[in-house]
Amino acid sequence: MYLAMVYVTLKPTVNDPQGLTIQGALHTLGFGSVKSVRAGKYLEIKLDGKTQAEASDTVQKMCRQLLANPVIENFRFEMEEIK
Amino acid sequence: MYLAMVYVTLKPTVNDPQGLTIQGALHTLGFGSVKSVRAGKYLEIKLDGKTQAEASDTVQKMCRQLLANPVIENFRFEMEEIK
Repeated sequence: MYLAMVYVTLKPTVNDPQGLTIQGALHTLGFGSVKSVRAGKYLEIKLDGKTQAEASDTVQKMCRQLLANPVIENFRFEMEEIK
Repeated sequence: MYLAMVYVTLKPTVNDPQGLTIQGALHTLGFGSVKSVRAGKYLEIKLDGKTQAEASDTVQKMCRQLLANPVIENFRFEMEEIK
């Protein structure tokens, strides 16, 4: 069994209203040192696979097909073996 | 300037309908090897600070006050210095 930690972020040129809202709220709370906030998604996926390479390949396909929107988002992931 | 990478995840005992929906969609797409999906948030925050310890302390406070709901969510973060 493998655990994939998937990070999906908006591409740098894409406007991020959620991040801007969080930034505004942090400023309101007195955190004036905050210069920018970008919001993204974090997914923890447990999956079976014969080898780590095979599981990694599966996660890559899942990201391309469903988890990330390739037009506006980037993704990266890390894998580790779990019991 | 520092970059904080903040991961906010639901506590393990909390029901995660978003994760279950993603898991269902992955199964429908033919990824039957997926055993579980947990959805969380990922934030990239750029902030000023005199030292990394000070910036880290600020991020800790931001997480407690706004970014994570301590009743149902856990958070962790990594810091790195950027130009």
